[in-house]
Amino acid sequence: MLPFARVSILGLGLIGSSLARAVRLYLPTVRITGYDASPEVRDIARALDLADDVADSAGTAVIDADLVVLCVPVGAMGAVAAEIAGDLPSDAIVSDVGSSKTEIARVLGAALPGATVIPAHPVAGTENSGPQAGFASLFRGRWCILTPPDGADPVAVERVAEFWRRLGAMTENMAPEHHDRVLAVTSHLPHLIAYTIVGTASDLEEVTRSEVIKFSAGGFRDFTRIAASDPTMWRDVFLSNREAVLDMLQRFSEDLSALQRAIRWGKGDELFELFTRTRAIRRSIVEQGQDDAKPDFGRAHD
Amino acid sequence: MLPFARVSILGLGLIGSSLARAVRLYLPTVRITGYDASPEVRDIARALDLADDVADSAGTAVIDADLVVLCVPVGAMGAVAAEIAGDLPSDAIVSDVGSSKTEIARVLGAALPGATVIPAHPVAGTENSGPQAGFASLFRGRWCILTPPDGADPVAVERVAEFWRRLGAMTENMAPEHHDRVLAVTSHLPHLIAYTIVGTASDLEEVTRSEVIKFSAGGFRDFTRIAASDPTMWRDVFLSNREAVLDMLQRFSEDLSALQRAIRWGKGDELFELFTRTRAIRRSIVEQGQDDAKPDFGRAHD
Repeated sequence: MLPFARVSILGLGLIGSSLARAVRLYLPTVRITGYDASPEVRDIARALDLADDVADSAGTAVIDADLVVLCVPVGAMGAVAAEIAGDLPSDAIVSDVGSSKTEIARVLGAALPGATVIPAHPVAGTENSGPQAGFASLFRGRWCILTPPDGADPVAVERVAEFWRRLGAMTENMAPEHHDRVLAVTSHLPHLIAYTIVGTASDLEEVTRSEVIKFSAGGFRDFTRIAASDPTMWRDVFLSNREAVLDMLQRFSEDLSALQRAIRWGKGDELFELFTRTRAIRRSIVEQGQDDAKPDFGRAHD
Repeated sequence: MLPFARVSILGLGLIGSSLARAVRLYLPTVRITGYDASPEVRDIARALDLADDVADSAGTAVIDADLVVLCVPVGAMGAVAAEIAGDLPSDAIVSDVGSSKTEIARVLGAALPGATVIPAHPVAGTENSGPQAGFASLFRGRWCILTPPDGADPVAVERVAEFWRRLGAMTENMAPEHHDRVLAVTSHLPHLIAYTIVGTASDLEEVTRSEVIKFSAGGFRDFTRIAASDPTMWRDVFLSNREAVLDMLQRFSEDLSALQRAIRWGKGDELFELFTRTRAIRRSIVEQGQDDAKPDFGRAHD
């Protein structure tokens, strides 16, 4: 049985357009309605045939939906929810794909009183943005975390979970506050650090930008991928998950200071001990299918 | 014309074994002698047929070489140089592949007085270690930096450069001090940060290690690759390029503090401005062939 028959996707960037493609591929009988605030993106979505219908307003897009998925930056969630409030069918479930669940639960709850809201977060993405960047297999083998509010209808939660599983994802339920702390370490802090080091490297006087680029294969290039992610999305993530991000950042800074001290004082044993420990985590990530086992992530050589 | 006819490779880990394979493939008439301090590695090298001859001592390995390439951790360079000093032919050129050129120039100069030493550093590698991890195309399209000492014979420098170019690398000459500052930012600092964040993530109380692994596709997994690199090699790099690493780390920490402050005070414009700037560097790295243009580094999806 299909978890939903008519899905509306609001926001047709990397995630929204991947979702549309995945629904097309894995749930081909589901009717998809798309919407994006940008007329250009709507035109591209029509040209790419991402949806059965691309609506010209958010309200029109949800009018007969049984699932509405908000795929917009966290900072735009409240506004788009307000736009659909008057047209949302009473039995529709509203979900989203945002990366800061406490804040999203708050703004969706405020904008859509009485609606069934089951927030979700597929932990997947690439450094590319926009409707052309999406692809149907993005969520396959990745985790999608659901953060149902207290007292949420278990049937509604299960329908959203089943929807994501049909697209190839694995699902897990979590309290929004815990989600925000887990993602602060597995996603937000890595992005913050990547953005920082790429900024540091481009601001040096005596090492030129051209040298940084040429010799980036020494490790730096690994950081540039996630530092090429969408700026609006990430600005909103940091501002909306501020507390957890600042806490993780504090812990990271303390650990970095300890390592700095070990280098300054020549404590090779401390360095060696840490560098040995960190290998195990990579091994587990590869074993659990969350990364490529091939060297260099399977990057092309030659 | 061949730059060298008899090449000895001392140290048969990832880099040394890749070098042996590359010489086999691209300079098939060159005679290769290999050596590794570990008897197990020597046995594997023989089984893999990495060299025409695998010697049982460093001295024997260099006895008729016209190029000797030291492929051992920086901290072992002095000892292996001392081991070969008595057997090194007077017209042989000694080179290496180490990541801290000032320190290596110092120890090789001290251990091999009168020898022609032309240090080099191919900026290439993977997270895997050992003789089985090497492959012939590792250096193709990558840069190899030569750091000839003041007054070095230009013919010797050119022969070493030509050797690397024959293996598919591009070459550039640099003062060792400048090399060490360039690599501090393009390689050493990224590794240090990656090791740190993986350590931070594995030491949290309330977010479990299992959660870190499951949800690593949010960005964290990109850091785990280089944090799986060889612990001995990296301990030696940080200790031997201490000053430049600590300086770059200081700059990074200042930039991170500025970003931390921007998050705390909700300065979205500052975040957005940095996140937009960092995209350009990635684009250049891809354009210049130093990384894969495909999303996710070309990782397998599905």
